[in-house]
Amino acid sequence: MRTIEFWYEFASTYSYVTAMRIGRLAVAEGVPVRWRPFLLGPIFKELGWNDSPFNIYPAKGRYMWRDLERVCEDEGLPVRLPPVRFPQNGVKAARLALAGEHEGWTPAFTSAAFQANYAEQRDIFDDDTLSAILTGLDVDPDRAFAAANAPANKEALFAQVAEAKTRGIFGAPSFTVGDELFWGNDRLEAALAWAKA
Amino acid sequence: MRTIEFWYEFASTYSYVTAMRIGRLAVAEGVPVRWRPFLLGPIFKELGWNDSPFNIYPAKGRYMWRDLERVCEDEGLPVRLPPVRFPQNGVKAARLALAGEHEGWTPAFTSAAFQANYAEQRDIFDDDTLSAILTGLDVDPDRAFAAANAPANKEALFAQVAEAKTRGIFGAPSFTVGDELFWGNDRLEAALAWAKA
Repeated sequence: MRTIEFWYEFASTYSYVTAMRIGRLAVAEGVPVRWRPFLLGPIFKELGWNDSPFNIYPAKGRYMWRDLERVCEDEGLPVRLPPVRFPQNGVKAARLALAGEHEGWTPAFTSAAFQANYAEQRDIFDDDTLSAILTGLDVDPDRAFAAANAPANKEALFAQVAEAKTRGIFGAPSFTVGDELFWGNDRLEAALAWAKA
Repeated sequence: MRTIEFWYEFASTYSYVTAMRIGRLAVAEGVPVRWRPFLLGPIFKELGWNDSPFNIYPAKGRYMWRDLERVCEDEGLPVRLPPVRFPQNGVKAARLALAGEHEGWTPAFTSAAFQANYAEQRDIFDDDTLSAILTGLDVDPDRAFAAANAPANKEALFAQVAEAKTRGIFGAPSFTVGDELFWGNDRLEAALAWAKA
């Protein structure tokens, strides 16, 4: 049984959907998951985009918001749109999620932050919001922020982005199983099947 | 029971997959399908693209070809890559497909042309290839080309593109059920469910 790596960006709308369902599905399939927060901004910049493609291309954006509503309804997921801003700046949440890996609270923090952003119109670039989420998970915010903002952790997030690029990742959510890449919440089932094969 | 409109472009890789499965699925669900060939080129041009985004963004393109292979394997569909050229110029095939609507051979012609392009490395911008496909369907090529190239049919194809744009379509395959838009082969099932609801 191989591990599935779940690459996500906190600004990414469909990453929200995956974050809320990957744990349940992976347990059901018996596939271990590694949660890998990263940033799409630096990758999009290299493609010539200084904004989300959903903002750059309005027809695509309008479609995505409607599709997101439908997908969330199918999944029984709460959603409240629009989020505080889009794309959200996910760097603080990503640093925290990465810092939490050693202590094991990355999945719970990630799901809670996504829910705050997409279902509760809370601002996950705001330290108070992030602190409240951490407190809700019995994680000490001061300690978590110190770990998140340590130079080694910031560098680790850059390295995570660089690795994503090397692996051919150009969007989120993405999944890797060894060298095999899957893109999009719609490919979660296929990626899990690949990990089991 | 509402009709599902299937918007496709002959250059579009995932439109191939849909063209080969929509008939079967729609019959199983009892949903009528209207096949609506159109052209993405004029729509992409307005977005600033003079080429397929899969060529403009190499990481996305590399991923797409691999994903297409996997999807075809899952669907039991033949695929032989790369096609003669990509993106293919689908205008001749689209004009024929549109001309065939009155006589009812649009679905069969469309599936055969997609298969020639993506499973047989034949050139569907070549008149001989298109003639052979028509002959295989017991359609007289001379008559079909005359209908396809009639000014009214060329205009009808432009009108089809204009309608696609008005309906918010920005890629292919797309599906409309009334005002509801679905994008991508992955949304075929959701679009059929919407038509039945």
